[in-house]
Amino acid sequence: MSMQVERSEEMVAAIEQELSALFRRSRSASLRLARRVHPEMDAAGYALISQIEMGTGNGAGVRASDVAHVLGLDKSTVSRGITQLENLGLIERVGDPDDGRARLLRLTTTGAERYEAMRTQRQTEFRAILDRWNPTDLADLGRLLARLNTDLG
Amino acid sequence: MSMQVERSEEMVAAIEQELSALFRRSRSASLRLARRVHPEMDAAGYALISQIEMGTGNGAGVRASDVAHVLGLDKSTVSRGITQLENLGLIERVGDPDDGRARLLRLTTTGAERYEAMRTQRQTEFRAILDRWNPTDLADLGRLLARLNTDLG
Repeated sequence: MSMQVERSEEMVAAIEQELSALFRRSRSASLRLARRVHPEMDAAGYALISQIEMGTGNGAGVRASDVAHVLGLDKSTVSRGITQLENLGLIERVGDPDDGRARLLRLTTTGAERYEAMRTQRQTEFRAILDRWNPTDLADLGRLLARLNTDLG
Repeated sequence: MSMQVERSEEMVAAIEQELSALFRRSRSASLRLARRVHPEMDAAGYALISQIEMGTGNGAGVRASDVAHVLGLDKSTVSRGITQLENLGLIERVGDPDDGRARLLRLTTTGAERYEAMRTQRQTEFRAILDRWNPTDLADLGRLLARLNTDLG
Protein backbone atom coordinates (compact mmCIF):
# COMPACT_ATOMS: atom_id res chain seq x y z
CA MET A 1 0.00 0.00 0.00
CA SER A 2 1.52 3.35 -1.03
CA MET A 3 1.93 6.16 1.50
CA GLN A 4 -0.67 8.24 -0.29
CA VAL A 5 -3.33 5.51 -0.15
CA GLU A 6 -2.62 4.98 3.52
CA ARG A 7 -2.83 8.72 4.19
CA SER A 8 -6.19 8.92 2.34
CA GLU A 9 -7.60 6.07 4.43
CA GLU A 10 -6.63 7.92 7.59
CA MET A 11 -8.34 11.08 6.35
CA VAL A 12 -11.53 9.20 5.44
CA ALA A 13 -11.56 7.57 8.90
CA ALA A 14 -11.12 11.02 10.47
CA ILE A 15 -14.06 12.37 8.44
CA GLU A 16 -16.21 9.40 9.57
CA GLN A 17 -15.39 10.15 13.19
CA GLU A 18 -16.17 13.84 12.83
CA LEU A 19 -19.48 13.10 11.11
CA SER A 20 -20.42 10.63 13.88
CA ALA A 21 -19.59 13.29 16.47
CA LEU A 22 -21.68 15.84 14.54
CA PHE A 23 -24.68 13.47 14.37
CA ARG A 24 -24.40 12.72 18.09
CA ARG A 25 -24.23 16.46 18.75
CA SER A 26 -27.32 16.99 16.61
CA ARG A 27 -29.23 14.29 18.53
CA SER A 28 -28.38 15.73 21.93
CA ALA A 29 -29.23 19.24 20.68
CA SER A 30 -32.66 17.89 19.68
CA LEU A 31 -33.78 17.57 23.29
CA ARG A 32 -32.64 21.12 24.09
CA LEU A 33 -34.48 22.46 21.03
CA ALA A 34 -37.54 20.35 21.86
CA ARG A 35 -37.69 21.84 25.36
CA ARG A 36 -37.67 25.33 23.87
CA VAL A 37 -40.75 24.52 21.83
CA HIS A 38 -42.46 22.81 24.75
CA PRO A 39 -41.06 21.70 28.15
CA GLU A 40 -42.77 18.29 27.83
CA MET A 41 -41.51 17.45 24.34
CA ASP A 42 -38.52 15.07 23.87
CA ALA A 43 -36.13 14.50 20.95
CA ALA A 44 -38.57 12.12 19.25
CA GLY A 45 -41.29 14.78 19.39
CA TYR A 46 -38.85 17.30 17.97
CA ALA A 47 -38.11 15.13 14.93
CA LEU A 48 -41.85 14.67 14.43
CA ILE A 49 -42.85 18.32 14.73
CA SER A 50 -39.94 19.39 12.48
CA GLN A 51 -41.18 17.02 9.80
CA ILE A 52 -44.77 18.23 10.13
CA GLU A 53 -43.60 21.84 10.03
CA MET A 54 -41.52 21.18 6.92
CA GLY A 55 -44.51 19.60 5.20
CA THR A 56 -46.98 22.38 6.00
CA GLY A 57 -45.30 25.11 3.99
CA ASN A 58 -48.39 25.41 1.80
CA GLY A 59 -50.80 25.26 4.74
CA ALA A 60 -52.56 22.04 3.73
CA GLY A 61 -50.73 19.67 6.07
CA VAL A 62 -49.09 16.25 5.78
CA ARG A 63 -50.23 12.67 6.10
CA ALA A 64 -49.08 10.69 9.14
CA SER A 65 -47.99 7.86 6.83
CA ASP A 66 -45.70 10.23 4.90
CA VAL A 67 -44.17 11.49 8.15
CA ALA A 68 -43.55 7.88 9.24
CA HIS A 69 -41.99 7.11 5.85
CA VAL A 70 -39.61 10.08 5.87
CA LEU A 71 -38.50 9.50 9.46
CA GLY A 72 -38.14 5.73 8.92
CA LEU A 73 -40.40 4.99 11.87
CA ASP A 74 -43.10 2.39 12.45
CA LYS A 75 -46.64 3.74 12.11
CA SER A 76 -47.45 2.82 15.70
CA THR A 77 -44.49 4.88 16.98
CA VAL A 78 -45.51 7.89 14.91
CA SER A 79 -49.13 7.50 15.93
CA ARG A 80 -48.21 7.64 19.63
CA GLY A 81 -46.00 10.68 19.03
CA ILE A 82 -48.75 12.48 17.13
CA THR A 83 -51.19 11.96 19.98
CA GLN A 84 -48.63 13.44 22.41
CA LEU A 85 -48.08 16.53 20.24
CA GLU A 86 -51.85 16.93 19.86
CA ASN A 87 -52.30 16.75 23.63
CA LEU A 88 -49.64 19.45 24.04
CA GLY A 89 -51.65 21.65 21.68
CA LEU A 90 -48.82 21.89 19.14
CA ILE A 91 -50.39 20.09 16.17
CA GLU A 92 -53.90 19.38 14.93
CA ARG A 93 -55.67 17.09 12.47
CA VAL A 94 -57.59 18.67 9.63
CA GLY A 95 -59.54 17.35 6.65
CA ASP A 96 -57.67 16.70 3.42
CA PRO A 97 -59.12 18.98 0.69
CA ASP A 98 -58.12 16.33 -1.91
CA ASP A 99 -59.61 13.33 -0.08
CA GLY A 100 -62.66 13.73 2.15
CA ARG A 101 -61.93 10.60 4.17
CA ALA A 102 -58.25 11.39 4.87
CA ARG A 103 -56.87 13.55 7.67
CA LEU A 104 -53.80 15.77 7.50
CA LEU A 105 -51.51 16.98 10.27
CA ARG A 106 -50.44 20.58 10.68
CA LEU A 107 -49.09 22.88 13.38
CA THR A 108 -51.59 24.83 15.46
CA THR A 109 -51.08 28.60 15.64
CA THR A 110 -49.38 28.14 19.02
CA GLY A 111 -47.24 25.30 17.66
CA ALA A 112 -46.17 27.38 14.66
CA GLU A 113 -45.29 30.40 16.82
CA ARG A 114 -43.26 28.36 19.30
CA TYR A 115 -41.50 26.43 16.54
CA GLU A 116 -40.59 29.62 14.72
CA ALA A 117 -39.22 31.23 17.91
CA MET A 118 -37.02 28.17 18.54
CA ARG A 119 -35.78 28.18 14.95
CA THR A 120 -34.90 31.88 15.00
CA GLN A 121 -32.95 31.45 18.23
CA ARG A 122 -31.15 28.37 16.87
CA GLN A 123 -30.16 30.23 13.70
CA THR A 124 -28.90 33.22 15.67
CA GLU A 125 -26.71 30.96 17.82
CA PHE A 126 -25.39 29.01 14.83
CA ARG A 127 -24.58 32.18 12.91
CA ALA A 128 -22.79 33.73 15.90
CA ILE A 129 -20.44 30.73 15.85
CA LEU A 130 -19.73 30.79 12.12
CA ASP A 131 -19.35 34.58 12.07
CA ARG A 132 -15.91 34.04 13.59
CA TRP A 133 -14.76 31.91 10.62
CA ASN A 134 -12.85 33.43 7.72
CA PRO A 135 -14.56 33.56 4.30
CA THR A 136 -12.26 30.91 2.76
CA ASP A 137 -13.13 28.32 5.42
CA LEU A 138 -16.83 29.15 5.13
CA ALA A 139 -16.76 28.78 1.35
CA ASP A 140 -14.78 25.52 1.57
CA LEU A 141 -17.10 23.96 4.15
CA GLY A 142 -20.18 24.89 2.12
CA ARG A 143 -18.69 23.49 -1.07
CA LEU A 144 -17.44 20.25 0.53
CA LEU A 145 -20.72 19.58 2.36
CA ALA A 146 -22.63 20.15 -0.86
CA ARG A 147 -20.39 17.66 -2.64
CA LEU A 148 -20.76 15.15 0.21
CA ASN A 149 -24.57 15.43 0.00
CA THR A 150 -24.48 14.96 -3.76
CA ASP A 151 -22.13 11.97 -3.60
CA LEU A 152 -24.13 10.29 -0.83
CA GLY A 153 -27.38 10.78 -2.75
CA MET B 1 -23.92 46.30 5.20
CA SER B 2 -20.62 45.73 3.38
CA MET B 3 -20.41 43.31 0.49
CA GLN B 4 -18.16 41.00 2.47
CA VAL B 5 -20.58 40.73 5.41
CA GLU B 6 -23.42 40.06 3.01
CA ARG B 7 -21.36 37.39 1.28
CA SER B 8 -20.51 35.73 4.61
CA GLU B 9 -24.18 35.61 5.58
CA GLU B 10 -24.98 33.86 2.32
CA MET B 11 -22.24 31.32 2.93
CA VAL B 12 -23.43 30.63 6.48
CA ALA B 13 -26.99 30.15 5.20
CA ALA B 14 -25.68 27.73 2.57
CA ILE B 15 -23.82 25.73 5.25
CA GLU B 16 -27.00 25.58 7.36
CA GLN B 17 -28.92 24.19 4.40
CA GLU B 18 -26.27 21.59 3.63
CA LEU B 19 -26.12 20.48 7.26
CA SER B 20 -29.93 20.16 7.36
CA ALA B 21 -29.80 18.06 4.21
CA LEU B 22 -27.05 15.91 5.73
CA PHE B 23 -29.05 15.34 8.93
CA ARG B 24 -32.16 14.44 6.91
CA ARG B 25 -30.03 12.04 4.88
CA SER B 26 -28.68 10.50 8.08
CA ARG B 27 -32.20 10.02 9.42
CA SER B 28 -33.48 8.32 6.30
CA ALA B 29 -30.33 6.17 6.12
CA SER B 30 -31.13 5.04 9.68
CA LEU B 31 -34.08 2.95 8.52
CA ARG B 32 -32.02 1.28 5.81
CA LEU B 33 -29.26 0.49 8.29
CA ALA B 34 -31.81 -0.69 10.87
CA ARG B 35 -33.29 -3.14 8.35
CA ARG B 36 -29.85 -4.60 7.73
CA VAL B 37 -29.49 -5.39 11.42
CA HIS B 38 -33.03 -6.76 11.66
CA PRO B 39 -35.94 -6.53 9.19
CA GLU B 40 -38.35 -5.53 11.98
CA MET B 41 -36.24 -2.72 13.45
CA ASP B 42 -37.02 0.94 12.60
CA ALA B 43 -34.95 4.15 12.83
CA ALA B 44 -35.80 4.60 16.52
CA GLY B 45 -34.55 1.07 17.25
CA TYR B 46 -31.41 1.82 15.28
CA ALA B 47 -30.60 4.89 17.41
CA LEU B 48 -31.20 2.80 20.52
CA ILE B 49 -29.08 -0.20 19.53
CA SER B 50 -26.25 2.10 18.33
CA GLN B 51 -26.18 3.76 21.73
CA ILE B 52 -26.21 0.43 23.58
CA GLU B 53 -23.46 -0.88 21.31
CA MET B 54 -21.35 2.22 21.91
CA GLY B 55 -21.76 1.84 25.66
CA THR B 56 -20.83 -1.85 25.79
CA GLY B 57 -17.24 -1.53 24.63
CA ASN B 58 -16.00 -2.94 27.94
CA GLY B 59 -18.62 -5.69 28.04
CA ALA B 60 -20.38 -4.54 31.19
CA GLY B 61 -23.37 -2.84 29.53
CA VAL B 62 -25.23 0.44 29.94
CA ARG B 63 -28.11 1.68 32.07
CA ALA B 64 -31.41 2.38 30.33
CA SER B 65 -31.53 5.79 32.05
CA ASP B 66 -28.15 6.75 30.55
CA VAL B 67 -29.33 5.71 27.09
CA ALA B 68 -32.47 7.84 27.52
CA HIS B 69 -30.35 10.77 28.69
CA VAL B 70 -27.90 10.63 25.76
CA LEU B 71 -30.67 10.25 23.16
CA GLY B 72 -32.79 12.97 24.78
CA LEU B 73 -35.77 10.64 24.99
CA ASP B 74 -38.42 10.09 27.66
CA LYS B 75 -37.84 7.00 29.79
CA SER B 76 -41.16 5.51 28.68
CA THR B 77 -40.17 5.78 25.00
CA VAL B 78 -36.80 4.14 25.65
CA SER B 79 -38.40 1.46 27.79
CA ARG B 80 -40.77 0.49 24.96
CA GLY B 81 -37.89 0.44 22.48
CA ILE B 82 -35.78 -1.75 24.75
CA THR B 83 -38.56 -4.29 25.06
CA GLN B 84 -38.83 -4.42 21.25
CA LEU B 85 -35.08 -5.00 20.82
CA GLU B 86 -35.18 -7.67 23.53
CA ASN B 87 -38.05 -9.43 21.78
CA LEU B 88 -36.05 -9.38 18.54
CA GLY B 89 -33.20 -11.11 20.42
CA LEU B 90 -30.76 -8.25 19.75
CA ILE B 91 -30.16 -7.04 23.32
CA GLU B 92 -30.38 -8.54 26.80
CA ARG B 93 -30.49 -7.34 30.41
CA VAL B 94 -27.72 -8.45 32.74
CA GLY B 95 -26.87 -7.76 36.38
CA ASP B 96 -24.71 -4.73 37.17
CA PRO B 97 -21.48 -5.97 38.81
CA ASP B 98 -21.26 -2.65 40.71
CA ASP B 99 -24.86 -2.65 41.94
CA GLY B 100 -26.66 -5.91 42.65
CA ARG B 101 -30.11 -4.35 42.27
CA ALA B 102 -29.45 -2.59 38.96
CA ARG B 103 -29.74 -4.08 35.47
CA LEU B 104 -27.58 -3.22 32.47
CA LEU B 105 -28.30 -3.51 28.77
CA ARG B 106 -25.95 -5.07 26.29
CA LEU B 107 -26.05 -6.64 22.83
CA THR B 108 -26.61 -10.40 22.58
CA THR B 109 -24.07 -12.37 20.56
CA THR B 110 -26.48 -12.31 17.62
CA GLY B 111 -27.09 -8.59 18.07
CA ALA B 112 -23.38 -7.83 18.17
CA GLU B 113 -22.69 -9.94 15.05
CA ARG B 114 -25.49 -8.34 13.04
CA TYR B 115 -24.57 -4.83 14.17
CA GLU B 116 -20.92 -5.36 13.26
CA ALA B 117 -21.83 -6.71 9.80
CA MET B 118 -24.01 -3.63 9.16
CA ARG B 119 -21.26 -1.29 10.33
CA THR B 120 -18.60 -2.92 8.16
CA GLN B 121 -20.86 -2.65 5.10
CA ARG B 122 -21.70 0.98 5.91
CA GLN B 123 -18.01 1.85 6.24
CA THR B 124 -17.15 0.12 2.99
CA GLU B 125 -19.84 2.09 1.14
CA PHE B 126 -18.84 5.38 2.72
CA ARG B 127 -15.17 4.84 1.94
CA ALA B 128 -15.91 3.90 -1.65
CA ILE B 129 -17.54 7.32 -2.07
CA LEU B 130 -14.73 9.32 -0.47
CA ASP B 131 -12.04 7.33 -2.27
CA ARG B 132 -12.89 9.38 -5.34
CA TRP B 133 -12.07 12.69 -3.60
CA ASN B 134 -8.65 14.28 -3.91
CA PRO B 135 -6.43 14.45 -0.79
CA THR B 136 -6.78 18.24 -0.44
CA ASP B 137 -10.57 18.10 -0.27
CA LEU B 138 -10.43 15.17 2.18
CA ALA B 139 -8.01 17.01 4.44
CA ASP B 140 -10.06 20.24 4.27
CA LEU B 141 -13.35 18.49 5.06
CA GLY B 142 -11.80 16.67 8.02
CA ARG B 143 -10.26 19.85 9.38
CA LEU B 144 -13.39 22.00 8.93
CA LEU B 145 -15.72 19.37 10.46
CA ALA B 146 -13.35 19.05 13.43
CA ARG B 147 -13.43 22.81 13.90
CA LEU B 148 -17.21 22.90 13.57
CA ASN B 149 -17.53 20.20 16.26
CA THR B 150 -15.18 22.09 18.55
CA ASP B 151 -16.94 25.42 18.04
CA LEU B 152 -20.40 23.91 18.56
CA GLY B 153 -19.24 22.20 21.78
